[in-house]
Amino acid sequence: MQIELEHISDYNQTQLEGHQRKLSYWTQEVAKAEPVIQKLIEFQVAIPSWALGTGGTRFGRFPGGGEPRSLEEKIADVGLLHALNRASGAISLHIPWDIPTDPQAVKQLAAQNGLRFDAVNSNTFQDQADQALSYKFGSLQHTDAAVRQQAIDHNIDVIKHGVELGSDSLTVWLSDGSCFPGQLNFRKAFDRTLSSLAEIYAALPDDWKLFVEYKAFEPNFYSMTVGDWGSSFLFASKLGPKAYTLVDLGHHLPNANIEQIVAILLHQGKLGGFHFNDSKYGDDDLTVGSIRPYQLFLIFTELVDGMDARGMNHAKDLGWMIDASHNVKDPLEDLLQSVEAIQLAYAQALLVDREALEEAREANDPVRAQEILQDAFRTDVRPLVAEARRRAGGSLNPLGLYRTLDVRQQLIGERGAKTFATGL
Amino acid sequence: MQIELEHISDYNQTQLEGHQRKLSYWTQEVAKAEPVIQKLIEFQVAIPSWALGTGGTRFGRFPGGGEPRSLEEKIADVGLLHALNRASGAISLHIPWDIPTDPQAVKQLAAQNGLRFDAVNSNTFQDQADQALSYKFGSLQHTDAAVRQQAIDHNIDVIKHGVELGSDSLTVWLSDGSCFPGQLNFRKAFDRTLSSLAEIYAALPDDWKLFVEYKAFEPNFYSMTVGDWGSSFLFASKLGPKAYTLVDLGHHLPNANIEQIVAILLHQGKLGGFHFNDSKYGDDDLTVGSIRPYQLFLIFTELVDGMDARGMNHAKDLGWMIDASHNVKDPLEDLLQSVEAIQLAYAQALLVDREALEEAREANDPVRAQEILQDAFRTDVRPLVAEARRRAGGSLNPLGLYRTLDVRQQLIGERGAKTFATGL
Amino acid sequence: MQIELEHISDYNQTQLEGHQRKLSYWTQEVAKAEPVIQKLIEFQVAIPSWALGTGGTRFGRFPGGGEPRSLEEKIADVGLLHALNRASGAISLHIPWDIPTDPQAVKQLAAQNGLRFDAVNSNTFQDQADQALSYKFGSLQHTDAAVRQQAIDHNIDVIKHGVELGSDSLTVWLSDGSCFPGQLNFRKAFDRTLSSLAEIYAALPDDWKLFVEYKAFEPNFYSMTVGDWGSSFLFASKLGPKAYTLVDLGHHLPNANIEQIVAILLHQGKLGGFHFNDSKYGDDDLTVGSIRPYQLFLIFTELVDGMDARGMNHAKDLGWMIDASHNVKDPLEDLLQSVEAIQLAYAQALLVDREALEEAREANDPVRAQEILQDAFRTDVRPLVAEARRRAGGSLNPLGLYRTLDVRQQLIGERGAKTFATGL
Amino acid sequence: MQIELEHISDYNQTQLEGHQRKLSYWTQEVAKAEPVIQKLIEFQVAIPSWALGTGGTRFGRFPGGGEPRSLEEKIADVGLLHALNRASGAISLHIPWDIPTDPQAVKQLAAQNGLRFDAVNSNTFQDQADQALSYKFGSLQHTDAAVRQQAIDHNIDVIKHGVELGSDSLTVWLSDGSCFPGQLNFRKAFDRTLSSLAEIYAALPDDWKLFVEYKAFEPNFYSMTVGDWGSSFLFASKLGPKAYTLVDLGHHLPNANIEQIVAILLHQGKLGGFHFNDSKYGDDDLTVGSIRPYQLFLIFTELVDGMDARGMNHAKDLGWMIDASHNVKDPLEDLLQSVEAIQLAYAQALLVDREALEEAREANDPVRAQEILQDAFRTDVRPLVAEARRRAGGSLNPLGLYRTLDVRQQLIGERGAKTFATGL
Repeated sequence: MQIELEHISDYNQTQLEGHQRKLSYWTQEVAKAEPVIQKLIEFQVAIPSWALGTGGTRFGRFPGGGEPRSLEEKIADVGLLHALNRASGAISLHIPWDIPTDPQAVKQLAAQNGLRFDAVNSNTFQDQADQALSYKFGSLQHTDAAVRQQAIDHNIDVIKHGVELGSDSLTVWLSDGSCFPGQLNFRKAFDRTLSSLAEIYAALPDDWKLFVEYKAFEPNFYSMTVGDWGSSFLFASKLGPKAYTLVDLGHHLPNANIEQIVAILLHQGKLGGFHFNDSKYGDDDLTVGSIRPYQLFLIFTELVDGMDARGMNHAKDLGWMIDASHNVKDPLEDLLQSVEAIQLAYAQALLVDREALEEAREANDPVRAQEILQDAFRTDVRPLVAEARRRAGGSLNPLGLYRTLDVRQQLIGERGAKTFATGL
Repeated sequence: MQIELEHISDYNQTQLEGHQRKLSYWTQEVAKAEPVIQKLIEFQVAIPSWALGTGGTRFGRFPGGGEPRSLEEKIADVGLLHALNRASGAISLHIPWDIPTDPQAVKQLAAQNGLRFDAVNSNTFQDQADQALSYKFGSLQHTDAAVRQQAIDHNIDVIKHGVELGSDSLTVWLSDGSCFPGQLNFRKAFDRTLSSLAEIYAALPDDWKLFVEYKAFEPNFYSMTVGDWGSSFLFASKLGPKAYTLVDLGHHLPNANIEQIVAILLHQGKLGGFHFNDSKYGDDDLTVGSIRPYQLFLIFTELVDGMDARGMNHAKDLGWMIDASHNVKDPLEDLLQSVEAIQLAYAQALLVDREALEEAREANDPVRAQEILQDAFRTDVRPLVAEARRRAGGSLNPLGLYRTLDVRQQLIGERGAKTFATGL
Repeated sequence: MQIELEHISDYNQTQLEGHQRKLSYWTQEVAKAEPVIQKLIEFQVAIPSWALGTGGTRFGRFPGGGEPRSLEEKIADVGLLHALNRASGAISLHIPWDIPTDPQAVKQLAAQNGLRFDAVNSNTFQDQADQALSYKFGSLQHTDAAVRQQAIDHNIDVIKHGVELGSDSLTVWLSDGSCFPGQLNFRKAFDRTLSSLAEIYAALPDDWKLFVEYKAFEPNFYSMTVGDWGSSFLFASKLGPKAYTLVDLGHHLPNANIEQIVAILLHQGKLGGFHFNDSKYGDDDLTVGSIRPYQLFLIFTELVDGMDARGMNHAKDLGWMIDASHNVKDPLEDLLQSVEAIQLAYAQALLVDREALEEAREANDPVRAQEILQDAFRTDVRPLVAEARRRAGGSLNPLGLYRTLDVRQQLIGERGAKTFATGL
Repeated sequence: MQIELEHISDYNQTQLEGHQRKLSYWTQEVAKAEPVIQKLIEFQVAIPSWALGTGGTRFGRFPGGGEPRSLEEKIADVGLLHALNRASGAISLHIPWDIPTDPQAVKQLAAQNGLRFDAVNSNTFQDQADQALSYKFGSLQHTDAAVRQQAIDHNIDVIKHGVELGSDSLTVWLSDGSCFPGQLNFRKAFDRTLSSLAEIYAALPDDWKLFVEYKAFEPNFYSMTVGDWGSSFLFASKLGPKAYTLVDLGHHLPNANIEQIVAILLHQGKLGGFHFNDSKYGDDDLTVGSIRPYQLFLIFTELVDGMDARGMNHAKDLGWMIDASHNVKDPLEDLLQSVEAIQLAYAQALLVDREALEEAREANDPVRAQEILQDAFRTDVRPLVAEARRRAGGSLNPLGLYRTLDVRQQLIGERGAKTFATGL
């Protein structure tokens, strides 16, 4: 299954009139429409290879059909997304689920699809079939030095795979922690984890970054060794300048003010990247923007402001990635919705009248500050996002075209109705 | 201070061109613009008399100036709001803070301001200076029958005041509960509360409603006797057909799905009314729509659908009230923002393509269902709300006019910079 | 592997001196020691068949060795527990994981182990290999009547299996709900679920109970159709007198006051049974009493008081079951700890000076009420629980004997190091 | 009102037989009884001056009688507590509520009561009557340099008062934050706060400590500028070696693992002190140990272990203070219960078999680790705590003697039934 340029242009043609009517209205209404469109064109969100299959809970998984059966098919799936929205130009691999047998061929395939390789991800939260030692009681924190060494070696191996593919960062998410009070010596677990991370850090190429992801909880845990931004910041600070904190929106305690965390981490020069998703209760990994779109906007407002304050390049200087689980939606449709939600929040954040906002803040005028933010949020930026896609060669309505072309049915035809994405 | 029609028409004139440009665009884009505008005109939100002064936390209160010093000034304040937005045509009184000395005069004053009297509110969560018995250990649940009787009598007294003013409902919010495990016999507290409520219920006029409000917690409590919708529903069911549950958005445990609660209560015929506000952590009583505007929209989506399913009149068959605390904002500005947020959510909910949504649901198509909801939510309905205000005689931009007229300064001039709203 | 009476008596002999020293002290200190011991002897907690294997999270599962490979081996495992503690005299089966091929033989095997069959559990939260229709979008709530019928038929089938084994109750836990706003019509989902439950209810034998379990969330969900006690109570009330609410300690929103919920449900005659476990964040399914032992005690305090108020038999009139997941502990050790935690909480609750407590409550003396509760909680009731076990023929120290006998190694020897309990 | 030694010895005499029976039993059962008793004798918990009056919520306050009307009466109250339990030998003052007019006389009075002065507390979360500038929009974070200077000056003034009294630490709790998204520039608020704290830090005497307290939320807030341990740690690290984090048990998001936070802060050398209380939902400020006694024990387990690992003196090297609000209990009774709960948790933590625990941890044996912890927790250490009190000259049962002597009635007699503790 390939989406031809013709498909896109034909479909866009059917939507063009309505689009242009909306666009011309909004271009008039919004002062900064053109620069916003330009920034949207540059902005790319990486797709994790594991998000292309159906996810599940610990109680059940209800797979759909046509799931990618190999790394090559995963790249093809991201290629489909990118062809449609021109905003998914990167893929984030997971080792060992996605070990490339022929890295050069894989790199070439990605290039043909307009994709680069984003952060590579290690996995020490599961035992693999051929694994010598178990991670049942942790990996980088383990009491047994041999288990720690195995986990360190695995991470270094992941870096090597990343180097071959042209990636330039490693994301480390640990499910290290404990299930019961008393099980863990918190101090020793901290020190062991730090020492293990330091060995991985030492193996990083000069131009690489190490992302230390934190997570508050997952059912079954009592403590997480990298459980909040404070812990991740401590580890990243002790490791050195190439180490950063990675924020996953779903990895917080109830009611956490994530936008403030983002602002402070960015302010301290330690924010490295993002895993986007949305959630209602825990780490729900739902479609970005499906539950709390205003919070997403507030986060982007801090990101844009904080990056500008440090002279950072929005498109390049932070790692942007989706990390969701698609239990009841077609994964590709879910990802199209997620990327669009990110673009909308980013566009709205770009529309915020920064000067007026700072004035309102200095004047301690929360009424006005709220008006300024909500004015941007309530602006219907969908035409701007659509225009950015159109100019970049994508579809005015990716989801519409996806359904029109019956992509999923075609994938099922090619791959079968009972496939399982590797790694899930 | 009075807002003259001329003020409004002059100001509207300055905004008219921009408004009409936006309105004509949206009237074209949105199929149902006209009926939405009509429904918005009819929709009125009551203002509680206690929301006109500056609120506070248990640690401090930072009053502003020009706060209303009497019931009459409170009515005047709501009159100002209503003159500006034509959507605040009701006031909800609190006894004993607002006991009218001359009910007829008060009624007349309200009528002059275009206001009716919404639900009256009793107060058994504080001790008043002249009160015989203390509510330290509860009121309707109290172990001492004399305290319960005092609280019952007070509620019946509140009903009488309400009858004089033309109100037709009583809201009972109890801070009855306990601070420590063991303090309360939960069963006896339930029975005593029920029995007390039954006496109040018996004193209700035939056409009145009794709203039983629930609340999950307030710092210092260990249990609340009416702590969740299940408890409130139990009480309301046992009391009879005139008793209903009242939902305050801030009165839930973290992450509660309020829209589902609303849907089920409405479905069971036991939803009576609403206290609107927003919150981040607890019962924060923040400006409506300032934290989770999408949740507010989802709630309105359930309200519109659920009321339509029962053939209810949106404007009349539920009690709509704001219940917020204005700690750092000018209360009147906060209320203007809150009413507008409610109108926006209501308008967006009216735009939802119900037929398509039900089709998507029957087809188990959550992708499509989300698109339908978000299409309504992302629509910029501000011009429709402004138009509704304009047609009803209000301001295209109430907050703008409020600031242009320097209303607060005028109130300070009239009332002084160091006034305290009664009851706070 | 069988635990012989001789093992127990020999082991007890080694512990007897210390035990008797402690027991004689406490028998003097505590007025009601003897009746408490008697009640402990009668009190039995059911073990669910699925708790005998290693659990996991959606990210990983780290199985141990010697897990039961069949229903017969599961019964044997519970037999081991019961031989050790004489308080696990019931097993709760899960269909289809535990369909007995020869019910008479299974019944006989259970009887040999001193076990009866507690509530049977249906499963419509997973798809089975041979299943015609999928539960991806729910079961009893499903939009498609055929799916609902399949789920109803399955439940009726479960009842039949239960009847054959001598069970007398059915527990229905649904993961029916939705993952995204808009996906579900809450009202229709409620009605469909009710209607499906009514068909199952109609198939219940006269002396059976139906337990409607509720659950607030599991990562990935946005709404649960039976999400809180209020919903479960509504369903149970509409179904009829044989329907009850089942409370699982881990199925609540953060900070919920579970002891109050228990008190009210019991007071309304609608509490049916319990799933014991403990949790820190979500539905963690940790060892009972490992995180919040005081909460467990408070719950038992309400249970004892509420059952006594209704003249109920502690041992028989509610369903007592453990529902935990053993990710890092040996499941049998975890269950021994859980049963003991339940017994300790029950014993402490029995020690509460009820008369004094009611006096303190009537006098609004929370200081004294707390002293009374904590006096019972801080009493070291371990000797009383040990004595109850000893008299019933069990071990003074089940865990100690389990380790002394090296039971797990023996099971691994018999069953292999790489077994997987069916159903997990 | 004074508690004479005779009162104590007479009362102890009536309890002695029972006490000695229990004590001799436990001294035999518990290996380390004697050193535990010694450590208990040394361990003192400071009482904050504001905890001697009745607290309240933002909705109401129900004062009791006999509240201290002056600093001198507050010292007398703490003197009463200390006479009873010999474990409350310090008082923590709040400025401006407790400005001593004659520091030498106050110091002498305290010495007569056996009390020293613990940390002094500043207050920039309220406006005082004579204050030039308002803290409505923050203090150390304020946009206006003049407000910041006023707050800095106040803190330096508090230090001076502390120096006069012999205190050696300053606790800074800020309610600086924001109520609405957009109101605050998080980065600037952080920098301003840091800069203000640096000026205060510069004014600290050489042997003083600065405690930076954090708090997650209070109803009405959207963000807190020092909102979590990560922020407090950042501030304390940037300020220098005399700055530490102060942990208040009630200042966390739901479900936070406080014991892990404590362990990590202590491990990083940045834990300075504690505010003890307990809570169910938010910052409930309930009696210590009244809701989650096991959590309190787990925290003490980390404290003892972490302090020992750094060679710290339990009694001196951390600031131990109660910070509670007594809304329905007699404040003095509440404080007696709180101190006892702390002593019990400390004693149990001292009983933990550390060596065995570390072995279990190294062996990844969570079952055994839990047994070791719970063995200590389930031990009835009340006789050890009572014995420590007795040997130090206090009452075997402080609450019992307090009630026997009818202390509250005597205080009411002396001070009146309608007094209000200053500052509340």
